[in-house]
Amino acid sequence: MNFKDKLIKAALSNKSWLCVGLDPDTSKLPTNVDKSTTGISQFLKNVIDTTKDLVCAYKPNSAFYEQFGADGINLLKEIIDYIPAKIPVILDAKRGDIGNTSRMYAVAAFEHLGVDALTVNPYMGYDCVKPFLDYKDKGVVILCLTSNPSSNDFQKRPLTVGDNEPAMLYQLVAKTALAWNENDNVCLVIGATKPEELGELRKLVGDDIPILIPGVGAQGGDLESSLKNGSNAKGQLAIINVSRSVLYVSTDDDYAARSRANALELVSKIRGLLF
Amino acid sequence: MNFKDKLIKAALSNKSWLCVGLDPDTSKLPTNVDKSTTGISQFLKNVIDTTKDLVCAYKPNSAFYEQFGADGINLLKEIIDYIPAKIPVILDAKRGDIGNTSRMYAVAAFEHLGVDALTVNPYMGYDCVKPFLDYKDKGVVILCLTSNPSSNDFQKRPLTVGDNEPAMLYQLVAKTALAWNENDNVCLVIGATKPEELGELRKLVGDDIPILIPGVGAQGGDLESSLKNGSNAKGQLAIINVSRSVLYVSTDDDYAARSRANALELVSKIRGLLF
Repeated sequence: MNFKDKLIKAALSNKSWLCVGLDPDTSKLPTNVDKSTTGISQFLKNVIDTTKDLVCAYKPNSAFYEQFGADGINLLKEIIDYIPAKIPVILDAKRGDIGNTSRMYAVAAFEHLGVDALTVNPYMGYDCVKPFLDYKDKGVVILCLTSNPSSNDFQKRPLTVGDNEPAMLYQLVAKTALAWNENDNVCLVIGATKPEELGELRKLVGDDIPILIPGVGAQGGDLESSLKNGSNAKGQLAIINVSRSVLYVSTDDDYAARSRANALELVSKIRGLLF
Repeated sequence: MNFKDKLIKAALSNKSWLCVGLDPDTSKLPTNVDKSTTGISQFLKNVIDTTKDLVCAYKPNSAFYEQFGADGINLLKEIIDYIPAKIPVILDAKRGDIGNTSRMYAVAAFEHLGVDALTVNPYMGYDCVKPFLDYKDKGVVILCLTSNPSSNDFQKRPLTVGDNEPAMLYQLVAKTALAWNENDNVCLVIGATKPEELGELRKLVGDDIPILIPGVGAQGGDLESSLKNGSNAKGQLAIINVSRSVLYVSTDDDYAARSRANALELVSKIRGLLF
């Protein structure tokens, strides 16, 4: 089953377009969780246990594991393996390099770690993204318009183009990514902090492209407008990613139940709007 | 000592602006080298032993280590630790994410692995690069105009700008990176396959920015034009990176001597032009 089918199946089964970020941050862990990779592993597994019926996907961010060196990569693999097989895993790693190098990143993510999708940076162009696209069953989640304030620095720069061409870099990236979608495995990242552009981009790319939408919660994006603007005509394929505001709700021993409560609150809103 | 000073010191000591890429590729290893991380470690150490007096820096590419999972990260750390302390190590990883995440990548590269410089992707803008720039003694090597053919897809797009503004995205990235250089630790990546743009960009950024120049060798870039166009007025700070054409010269047991011979040939040309 390819990534998109697996994603839709999980979303319909759990009645949810919520994706929970799994980003271990030792400065935010509950008080009684040991700050070793063993302690963190149990913490993340407990949160997975209490949220796995509420999500359409999980998104571990590689940076938060890489901070621990090789132990962190073992932890990342352990967490990926622990996630129920029916829930897709999106590895957030924002990779991209010349062809022979991107092939190695693809091996690392899709073969060694065995994730279902990977975030990819488009700055270097097609030949750097193609080695990921060649994995037909894997999702290639291309950065388009990101949720951070400095996304304006380059992504929102106006381009000199003809009448029917996109007018800003992020629009060109979206349109170009569509042209790369021969294997029906392209997805885009568009931040929840840009609701207008999200709606415009959903129209631009049509109904078949999953959009990963970070920025609801800690970064200030709005859930309802993200769903309304990001979903396709069927009310699908807007993946709402929330990390800190589900993972780090409580520093007490009730953290897993509190994570579930926060996830459920978000999912209830999603269900009210889309299911 | 900051990255730039360490780089110049190594370059002047070895009379070389050659940087050797250390990218383990099991399909290219010499016949008698065991394809385990133990075998690869010995292979890389042998090449370091025979080239360490010929380089200004080494550049391991993270992807080639990540393909082996946690074992690969241990291998990477082992190789970084093996490189003589006076030779700077540039980790090629093309990282970049929102602020709290880039901070974790910075911890992984600068603290856990202990490298002297890191390649960074600018697509997400300033707040994603700043956590790296905050490490004043570390080099932040920002992708500008890369050596691959598809660098034209986005980097060479014309922008709508005023009279005194850069006209293409890569030019804007170079000019913007200069404005980020408060800690004197910004470096740029400009491919050897673009000699004219390299010369133009050296003029644009002035004499104080190190430029990492990949693409000589397997990718077809020319050494002499890269040095002429990339060096500053003192004939310095053009870091010529060569990976495959030094590392994988021979599949026989003479590989380390052959790597040295190829590196020496390049260094002789560099010395003839710059020393």
